[in-house]
Parts: sequence; C-alpha cells; structure tokens
Amino acid sequence: MRDFSNDHRWLSLNTATVRKQGDLVAIIEACARHGIRAIDPWRDQVAATGLDRAVKAVRDAGLELSGYCRGGMFVADAAHRIEARDDNRRAIDEARALGAPCVVLVVGGLPQYSRPGSVASRDIAGARTQVHDAIAEMLDYAKAANMPLAIEPLHPAYAADRACVNTTKQALDICDALDPTRSGALGVALDVYHIWWDPDLLPQIARAGKQRLLAFHVCDWLVPTKDILNDRGMMGDGVIDIPSVRAAVEAQGFAGYSEIEIFSDDWWNKPMDEVLKTCIARHRTVV
Amino acid sequence: MRDFSNDHRWLSLNTATVRKQGDLVAIIEACARHGIRAIDPWRDQVAATGLDRAVKAVRDAGLELSGYCRGGMFVADAAHRIEARDDNRRAIDEARALGAPCVVLVVGGLPQYSRPGSVASRDIAGARTQVHDAIAEMLDYAKAANMPLAIEPLHPAYAADRACVNTTKQALDICDALDPTRSGALGVALDVYHIWWDPDLLPQIARAGKQRLLAFHVCDWLVPTKDILNDRGMMGDGVIDIPSVRAAVEAQGFAGYSEIEIFSDDWWNKPMDEVLKTCIARHRTVV
Repeated sequence: MRDFSNDHRWLSLNTATVRKQGDLVAIIEACARHGIRAIDPWRDQVAATGLDRAVKAVRDAGLELSGYCRGGMFVADAAHRIEARDDNRRAIDEARALGAPCVVLVVGGLPQYSRPGSVASRDIAGARTQVHDAIAEMLDYAKAANMPLAIEPLHPAYAADRACVNTTKQALDICDALDPTRSGALGVALDVYHIWWDPDLLPQIARAGKQRLLAFHVCDWLVPTKDILNDRGMMGDGVIDIPSVRAAVEAQGFAGYSEIEIFSDDWWNKPMDEVLKTCIARHRTVV
Repeated sequence: MRDFSNDHRWLSLNTATVRKQGDLVAIIEACARHGIRAIDPWRDQVAATGLDRAVKAVRDAGLELSGYCRGGMFVADAAHRIEARDDNRRAIDEARALGAPCVVLVVGGLPQYSRPGSVASRDIAGARTQVHDAIAEMLDYAKAANMPLAIEPLHPAYAADRACVNTTKQALDICDALDPTRSGALGVALDVYHIWWDPDLLPQIARAGKQRLLAFHVCDWLVPTKDILNDRGMMGDGVIDIPSVRAAVEAQGFAGYSEIEIFSDDWWNKPMDEVLKTCIARHRTVV
C-alpha cells in the first residue's frame, strides 16, 4: 500500500465536499492554495460556472480530474427515457471537454425519484433491468468518445431514491455482462461509505481487479448518522477501517487518486480552507 | 399465498409498534379489543410489567406469541462477554415462560455500541466472527430449553451499531454452519424493512426453506427516511413491494404470523386504537 503520510499528492477533492462554500472557480483556487492536484467536479457546479470557463480554470490551475460526477439516473418511465439518455450523452461530452478519466454513474432508484415526473413504481427488479439496458446503450456512446464509465454501487439505504445498484457484486455483474473482455471501458467507482459494511467486499474487490477499479472515494460513517444523505463523516471520525479497504484496492494495482467526497451539513458550514486543511491532515493519517 | 383480505387472523403485533402509548398490559388489552391473536413482546416491556404478570396477561387474553424480542448484542470486549452470555440465557428463559416460538436475535455491531463500555473497535470482520461463536454457544442452551433462535439480518445502515449480520445470505450461512441438519433449532427472522433492497433476496428465501423461516415482519421504507431508526413506515406508505416478499416466503411453506413492527415517532404519537385500526386495515389490503 502506498504511504500517504508524507504528502498529499494522491488526494483528490470531490467538489461536492465544499459545494456550499464557493463556486467551482473558488474551489479550484482553494485547491491550488493547498497543493491539491486533482478534483472530481459535479455537473451542476460546472453548469453554474459554464463549461468553457470550467475547462479553462482546470487547465490554468494545472489540475487533473479523478472523475466526473455524475451520469446515471437511468430509471424512468417511457416518457422520460429519451431525456435520460440525452442527459447522459451530454455528461460524456462534458467529461471529455474537462479531461476526466471516467464518468461516475449513480444509476437511479425507482423511477419517481430517479427521473421526477415518472409514474411511480415499487418494482426494484424492473429498475435493475432498466439500469442494465441503459448502461448497455450509454456504453456505445461512451466507447465512441473514449470515455470509461464507472458504476458506483450506493449504500442500500439509497436503493429507492438514488441507486438500485447496492453492492460491488451487482456492479461487477453488470460490467462482466456488458464488457466481458475487460476492455477498460466499464468499471466501478468504490466509495468506502457505500461498501464498508459488505461481508462480500474483499472478494469482490479482488474480482474487480485493476481494470475495473476506476475510482476510489473516501469519507466515514458516523454513529449516529443524523441524516442519511448529508451527515457523512470526515475520515477518522467514524467507524470505517479505511486503510483496510484502500489496501485491498491497491493490492489489485489501483494507483489512482484517493478522492474525498463528504456530503455533510456540518462540514459545509465550516470555512473552505479549514475543510481542506482537515482533509489533507486526515488523508495523511487515517486513509 | 394466503388471502389476508377478509380478516386479520394472521396479524401479529410487535409490541414496539405502540410502546410509547401504553405498557404491555395495556397493549394486550388493546389487542383483545381489536381481535389481534398474537404479539411479539420486547424484553424491556416484559421487565417493566414483571415476567409473572406478563405471562398471566398473555394467558388470560388467550394470545399466542410470534416471537420474543430480543436476544443478541453478542459483540463485546472480553470484559463484557460473560454479561452478554448470561443476558442471552435469561432471554431464553423468559421466552420459554411466555410460550414464545423463538427468540429473535439482533446480533450487535461493533463492541462499543453492542455492549456499551466495551473497548471501541472498527473491526467488523472480527465482530462477525464473535457473532458466529456466540450463537454457537447460545445454541447449546437454547436446544436444551427447546427454544429456536431466529437470526434477524438488519439493514446495512445498522451494521455499526445494531447488527453486523446484514443480509439473508449471511444469516443463512451461520445457520448452515451451526445447524447443518436443519433441525429447526436455528433459523431467520425476515423483516421486509431490512431486506427489501437485496438483489439476492428471492434466491436466499428459497435457500432458507420452511425450516429456517421462523418469523416474518412487515412495515415499510419511507422516502425520505427522516430518521434511520425511528422513521419506519406503515405498510403501504412506502416503497416496499410487500406482497412479493410474502409470496416468496409463503411459497416455501411459511404459514405463521405476519408480524407488524414499526419504529416510528409519527405512529408513536397517535392513539393506540388508531394505530391498531390502521395496522389491521393495511394488513388486509397491502400486505
């Protein structure tokens, strides 16, 4: 496992971590101040700044990207499927313009939450079939753009409203079905928050191997968790044995960024520089 | 699948559902008023009433039990393991006195939450090993008392603080290891709230079979879920396709009670009779 204790060259900042403190340009400037070499920006932040301006800001700061958040939300009723398809194609175009190594996919849960306005359903098995089919379709466009897709399994607490792919095994089953040759076009984004509880995690990381491990995200699981979406913890403040997961991922050859993504009302209420200083300190000591 | 639409003879009330509205005796009286034939009482409610008085109240009302909640919380540091063992033996003794068909096991998460005062740990794999060993030990005592143990897999959102057995597969793996002959002494309690999201659910229910299916609990998953412990929904108010799970369980031969267990600040704030009337109506229409 790489030694992170001496510097933070492998730290990437998912820009949602400080989304309330400033716009994308302000976040990029703060990363430059703190010697952070990579970010994973969100589409809404890019849209607010303007794609061209975002591309220029990233280049001017000499930043790399560790991903682009996010595509997906595939589950929809018939009336909303074309919208979902086109929206995901635009995500690929934007990722390419920004120089992202992959588009992270949050696949969507039930249609009424994934694509609001869709007819409500309780059919999670049907949602999973839709996700499979929609990734198959998106993959053609992504391959043509030479843009890998990283399926992010989300914690089962989000099965209804955000993602019906809830385990690493499920994500890898889709990868194996749609990309049996392990071409590099399809893989997974693993966030310790979503997967730490899984008794099947280590075998599935081994199954993934280097070619499927496209992104690695860290934060922590707090006890108690006051809000299931926006009470994620700073690394070290919760119960996840983060180094054991990173060790497993790196044992497969993963050598990319360790991306910090924290949705937290608490951390959104602190100054951006304080958050980034804390991220760097924890990256060096508990990741 | 049994037809529940004409009566509620297969409705059991987990007494936690109305724990804030009255003590165990008041709940038993309310069940009698509403023609509810079975309950699953909690140990703290029995203790508050007194075991002898609880036994008499259950008998006088002619109630059956669908389970006894709960044993478990096995994970502990060395200083707290004897306490955990003895506590679980008392749970078996109480269940026997009450005429329960099984003791439901919530196995515990990390030691600092499972048995407060224990030395803190992030070792969830170690917790799982402890659970396996402790159930093996408890099973000897349970067999001597002729009291089946029902392992309840809990939603992964509780992996840290309540139960590190988070899937039906995990629970059944323990059953198969400790009771390979399927003697009836060890099985599972399946609550739709905890398992509805699991892509492996239907195959695991088939794997369980009648001999492992010792209890079946219902409520619903609300979107949004405002509190991860105490915002469970009344059946029909959430996203779970409950009949599909009940159909799978009954296809294996399960013919026991459909037990309603709702931890909800909203429902705890309504009059007991209103809650029970609603439970009965929903049992007949959406379970």
